[in-house]
Amino acid sequence: MAIITLITDFGLKDGNAAVMKGVILQIAPAVQIVDVSHLIQPQNILEAAMILFRSAMYFPVNTVHTIVVDPGVGTNRRPIAARIGTQYFVCPDNGILSLVIDSAKTEGVAMEFYKLEIPRFWLPQISHVFHGRDIFAPVAAHIANGQNILSMGSAIQDVIRFSFPDPKRTENGWQGEVIYIDHFGNIILNINEQHIGENEIIATKLNGYEIFGQEKTFGNQDEGKLIVLYGSTKNLIIAKVNGDAAKVIQCTIGSLVEITVR
Amino acid sequence: MAIITLITDFGLKDGNAAVMKGVILQIAPAVQIVDVSHLIQPQNILEAAMILFRSAMYFPVNTVHTIVVDPGVGTNRRPIAARIGTQYFVCPDNGILSLVIDSAKTEGVAMEFYKLEIPRFWLPQISHVFHGRDIFAPVAAHIANGQNILSMGSAIQDVIRFSFPDPKRTENGWQGEVIYIDHFGNIILNINEQHIGENEIIATKLNGYEIFGQEKTFGNQDEGKLIVLYGSTKNLIIAKVNGDAAKVIQCTIGSLVEITVR
Amino acid sequence: MAIITLITDFGLKDGNAAVMKGVILQIAPAVQIVDVSHLIQPQNILEAAMILFRSAMYFPVNTVHTIVVDPGVGTNRRPIAARIGTQYFVCPDNGILSLVIDSAKTEGVAMEFYKLEIPRFWLPQISHVFHGRDIFAPVAAHIANGQNILSMGSAIQDVIRFSFPDPKRTENGWQGEVIYIDHFGNIILNINEQHIGENEIIATKLNGYEIFGQEKTFGNQDEGKLIVLYGSTKNLIIAKVNGDAAKVIQCTIGSLVEITVR
Repeated sequence: MAIITLITDFGLKDGNAAVMKGVILQIAPAVQIVDVSHLIQPQNILEAAMILFRSAMYFPVNTVHTIVVDPGVGTNRRPIAARIGTQYFVCPDNGILSLVIDSAKTEGVAMEFYKLEIPRFWLPQISHVFHGRDIFAPVAAHIANGQNILSMGSAIQDVIRFSFPDPKRTENGWQGEVIYIDHFGNIILNINEQHIGENEIIATKLNGYEIFGQEKTFGNQDEGKLIVLYGSTKNLIIAKVNGDAAKVIQCTIGSLVEITVR
Repeated sequence: MAIITLITDFGLKDGNAAVMKGVILQIAPAVQIVDVSHLIQPQNILEAAMILFRSAMYFPVNTVHTIVVDPGVGTNRRPIAARIGTQYFVCPDNGILSLVIDSAKTEGVAMEFYKLEIPRFWLPQISHVFHGRDIFAPVAAHIANGQNILSMGSAIQDVIRFSFPDPKRTENGWQGEVIYIDHFGNIILNINEQHIGENEIIATKLNGYEIFGQEKTFGNQDEGKLIVLYGSTKNLIIAKVNGDAAKVIQCTIGSLVEITVR
Repeated sequence: MAIITLITDFGLKDGNAAVMKGVILQIAPAVQIVDVSHLIQPQNILEAAMILFRSAMYFPVNTVHTIVVDPGVGTNRRPIAARIGTQYFVCPDNGILSLVIDSAKTEGVAMEFYKLEIPRFWLPQISHVFHGRDIFAPVAAHIANGQNILSMGSAIQDVIRFSFPDPKRTENGWQGEVIYIDHFGNIILNINEQHIGENEIIATKLNGYEIFGQEKTFGNQDEGKLIVLYGSTKNLIIAKVNGDAAKVIQCTIGSLVEITVR
């Protein structure tokens, strides 16, 4: 049974993700549909790119990831389909795939991209405002049915990518920044295990707070304490034991972080 | 594989939609269940009717739409099942089907309605407060299994319907009203493509704001601009490019809108 | 088709429940996954225990309930799997199963518990911070595939349980407390049908409010009235007709309630 995942900024009330599911199930009745997130901040392509990257790798071979965060809907931005490694991606060409592509490059994984331009894989009528329903859902369903993406449009090389901020080496460690704040209020940094390597983290400074040392997990310190540890994707995170670190520290996406190592 | 959709005002925390799914899966193990919305404003039948109408048409033949917004649960309001065109509907008889019925009338589609009264299609025990679990979920599952709705109760003709406000023709255009505000803050009006026809929209007035002209899609104007365009269901909407129009304009459901055409 | 349910405190934005689903579908491609709730208050084991108890009994035989509210992740708290009656449970050993176990004891249902300790049923790499992904999801998937939980670790008897507060008999009735406030603002008490028995409820006092009598359902009194009735799980609830009782009464979990009967 093929799998289609959905990432959108549609929210959970209006029924628009369900409209996409109805369209998918008309074309691919046996597909399994998994909601990854419909709570991407409206029009926030960067956030969608991160949530896609964190989740896609855990899905089976041939999963079709469908991402609709699409401020340019109905303009001349291109709808695309991609095969990256063993998985498929269907989305507007607006940078949403940047992190997946970066990682595939690093790992030497094969990639193909196609501009979607063959209307027989779409709904009969194409609105100017809801390509999730009219183009991306039916295309994802046809791919799940085994349709080759080669047949859906012309190959392209120049998909849009944006660069995520890299941390900088400093005299005593690293300067990075906050890239995401999760549901628990954990603060996720762009500094990961590969940057720190064998070094030991001495101190982490963010927004006037200084946190000493590094923990292995949440529950080894007293409730309420601010701690620094590796999160589930090996990025460093700042957390509050059984609490909400972001509420305490009051940082935002892009806030600078200084880490001292030895 | 049969499909059952769910629309409720149960929210997403308490697990009550999942209780309905458990009941459904006991009776119809292979059914595909799609959540349309569980965030209908509590007891807001009008809102449920709109979200049902916007989504139902995109689902396959024989889909069973199950709608539980039910302020009259346990009183003498009737539980009903309907076949409208190629799809089924299971819900309390409180007006939820009004828009689906209006549209079916306009299109000359066949309709049958039954009062649910045969307890062998229900759970063994019927509470006074949760017919979603005790009546609507098991009935939807039996329909998904192929059970004829004829066998579930007596045919009725007098299902409850309420009228949605129609826009009025004015000297220079139309007076309509706000009927929904979506997740993005787009303001949806009861004036649609059929009202405007070949005319050109000159100006739209709402709550002291005046917006000139009409756009094809969101991304053709500068970020932050208020625009008027047709939404994905061909109703006129007022939007803010990459922003939240309702936050700016501060209108509510029922706020009057004046449109000038030529 | 086997069923796996999920209860977590992960929220709906970050995609972490979807990561668990990806892991599950790699191992058990044909499983049906049902979200019960991902909006458990962070780290609130008591709340997870209640929502599990209210929903589990409605699911089919052999359903695998997977509950990840896990403040002790990565510490020495044990991951466990259980068979209780006809259903399976996979979770951290932190008291989440307390209510399910209490009920099984009362009903004389068979129970077995195992400490999960055989890594071949887990992901190859185990993080310190996300056992939902690394241990609980793959274990649930293997159980759904028919793997015997006997083979997953050693039998244990001493799973952690906490006691929920029992109501106390008073001279004229019962003193209980608020145990949950639902999405509608209904206030759920720890006093149920078995406590009240054949008696008649005369008055209910909570936070300075006094409500007289008892209703069968919501819609028998005028809009806005506070009422007392049995909820869908036979616990007493305090509700406001077509409104939000908790907003009016301003009580919290643990607020004391006095009920007078005759």
